[in-house]
Amino acid sequence: MSMDLAAIEKTRQLLEPVVFETPLAPSPNLSKLVGADLWLKLENLQRTGSFKIRGAYAKLARLAATRPGAGVVAASAGNHAQGVAVSAAKLGLKATIFMPHGVSLSKREATAASGAQVILLGDSVAQGLEAAREQTPELTLIHPYDDEEIILGQASLGLEVLEQSPGMEALLVPVGGGGLIAGVAAAVKAKAPQVQVIGVEPQRAACAGAALLEGQPVSVETQPTLADGTRISRLGELTYPLIEKYVDQVVQVSEDHISQAMLLLLERRRIVAEGAGALGLAAFLADEVPQLAGKKVVLLISGGNVDSNLLGRIIDQGLVRSGRIFRFWVVLPDVPGALAGLLGEVAGAQANVLHISHDRLGKDLPPHQTRVRLEIETRGFAHAEELAAWLGESGYAIEPA
Amino acid sequence: MSMDLAAIEKTRQLLEPVVFETPLAPSPNLSKLVGADLWLKLENLQRTGSFKIRGAYAKLARLAATRPGAGVVAASAGNHAQGVAVSAAKLGLKATIFMPHGVSLSKREATAASGAQVILLGDSVAQGLEAAREQTPELTLIHPYDDEEIILGQASLGLEVLEQSPGMEALLVPVGGGGLIAGVAAAVKAKAPQVQVIGVEPQRAACAGAALLEGQPVSVETQPTLADGTRISRLGELTYPLIEKYVDQVVQVSEDHISQAMLLLLERRRIVAEGAGALGLAAFLADEVPQLAGKKVVLLISGGNVDSNLLGRIIDQGLVRSGRIFRFWVVLPDVPGALAGLLGEVAGAQANVLHISHDRLGKDLPPHQTRVRLEIETRGFAHAEELAAWLGESGYAIEPA
Repeated sequence: MSMDLAAIEKTRQLLEPVVFETPLAPSPNLSKLVGADLWLKLENLQRTGSFKIRGAYAKLARLAATRPGAGVVAASAGNHAQGVAVSAAKLGLKATIFMPHGVSLSKREATAASGAQVILLGDSVAQGLEAAREQTPELTLIHPYDDEEIILGQASLGLEVLEQSPGMEALLVPVGGGGLIAGVAAAVKAKAPQVQVIGVEPQRAACAGAALLEGQPVSVETQPTLADGTRISRLGELTYPLIEKYVDQVVQVSEDHISQAMLLLLERRRIVAEGAGALGLAAFLADEVPQLAGKKVVLLISGGNVDSNLLGRIIDQGLVRSGRIFRFWVVLPDVPGALAGLLGEVAGAQANVLHISHDRLGKDLPPHQTRVRLEIETRGFAHAEELAAWLGESGYAIEPA
Repeated sequence: MSMDLAAIEKTRQLLEPVVFETPLAPSPNLSKLVGADLWLKLENLQRTGSFKIRGAYAKLARLAATRPGAGVVAASAGNHAQGVAVSAAKLGLKATIFMPHGVSLSKREATAASGAQVILLGDSVAQGLEAAREQTPELTLIHPYDDEEIILGQASLGLEVLEQSPGMEALLVPVGGGGLIAGVAAAVKAKAPQVQVIGVEPQRAACAGAALLEGQPVSVETQPTLADGTRISRLGELTYPLIEKYVDQVVQVSEDHISQAMLLLLERRRIVAEGAGALGLAAFLADEVPQLAGKKVVLLISGGNVDSNLLGRIIDQGLVRSGRIFRFWVVLPDVPGALAGLLGEVAGAQANVLHISHDRLGKDLPPHQTRVRLEIETRGFAHAEELAAWLGESGYAIEPA
């Protein structure tokens, strides 16, 4: 497989009409937090919201050159679907995309809006892939990662980062099936072999770590992960040897670190990263890359396509963790005015009531008393503590919920 | 006041060590939505999360040159505070910032983290400004907008946009006290007088529209607005004449359009904009700029510092609006198994229960019946309708809540 610099550079030129050069942004406050000079490659701002259009367009552009008007088919629940759909539309190809029934409406609509025919089938991408092979043998199947031209397309990102980051000492790249990191690592090592290229995958879908241990791609059990774009059970046959050759290290991170990383990117840098896109920062939070302390490191934020409801939950978790939502129980006399009195005190502390519920049936409750659960919006732990102290002074015994 | 090109260019050089050149990003899907060729100037990715550091650093750098180690004071609940605090730290000046008691913890912490002394005082920025004048007469007061050097600093953004946007036909800029638009318009018109510069302000704080009508700055009543960074009751004495001279038009937008614009930027482009930063897109949604149809337009996304709880609410509203949260009432027999039966049907439609509440006391309810309110997570309107039809076929009479 010819993953040489000339092939990558030629592919990059091919992408020019469609793929944006995404920005590289510094992050002084995240740098301070993790103790390294962090830069963020904002591929979440790419057309279609992820890097996937690079590989898809490279593949489809070459197909269109030899077989104009050809039909293509892909199976995907997310970024690959949009990459193929938009690329096909730009190139005058007809795209058919199998998506699982559970796919989010926004991703389904975005794919259909580009003119692709969307077929809902089964509950998993694997079922869609099988159906694509069986039901549409006349169409060219576009594999999400195990394809030389797809890998060449993703490799363009490596050249871009290199140009934007003089002095870069390490690059952290998400790993699923390996298409992105195989291409990026090949590109980076060809021009700057001294740069460490480190892959990051979720513990819950750690097929790259397993493959490197076994010396060949092996199938692993996967579990649902926030980094759903990297939930692949087996590294590619084409991507494995490239990863083995060019990648310095692959590390694994927990769901907790991924969610913290998503929240930090959102709160400290106002960047919407999907779970896979936050893996690089998660590796720092998990203390998996201590050798990068003080170094100039680029985190590849591979995509931003996170569902709004998941994003809302990440934000809510962050609010609870940082004390901006404070939940507690308090026992009150079950008489008129008792709750009004308590809420008056809460208002006096400049805190906002989000939710109230009553429990009158607790076995340990004396009669004529009720236990009330309050969910209060505060300005943080200090404010919540202030509120707790204030209520204590006013004679209320509260108990965190 | 010398708002000439040479002064702006000199100021821009002054900013180089600290201010980032923020990216300009295309947005094919928002362009399609509004019928113009939209480009987004992502000043929300600026250091401190907003443009305010440009003016603050310009002002403080000149102060530091003549009076090294001087002390400065400012009053702000947000972006200006961080701009002054970070600039002072970079220049070895001592900053004191008055913030109102209600300020969000994240903004207070970000300001203090830069080494500024934060003093909490009163409920409004106006009280802080008064206190700054009275309590710290020895410190140089840094006004948030009505200052020549502040305006020169913001003007650097105009030159940046011009260089990044060949062929730009119009630029939409948020307006509060007018510092940003005064500088940007002066810069843009000096080099490209054919570019339309249009200001956008919230209806709830429309001091620029009022000033242009009266021919001078006038005080207007303001109300709380999502674009809180632009809640200023009176245009500046220095900014007004520049706006009068260089700005082609100022339009007003409603809260509803601002919240829609914030949501669209987040959902379609994965960009976190604060309310003020979303004003340009809001002007399109409000149909206030019909003359820009088909033109190449840059929206200045001035900042991204929106509190997480507000961001969470914007997301929740979006989920309800797009049918991804479906709320309805249903009357059930008040017997064991009735609710379990209903939830079995909901599960059969692949929908997820978020919240359930009971109303047994409704006057119109026959005895032995209970009214139940369900909040369900669906994949969108079509799925919600499917669920409603499915429940109807199963004999449940549901009523949207």
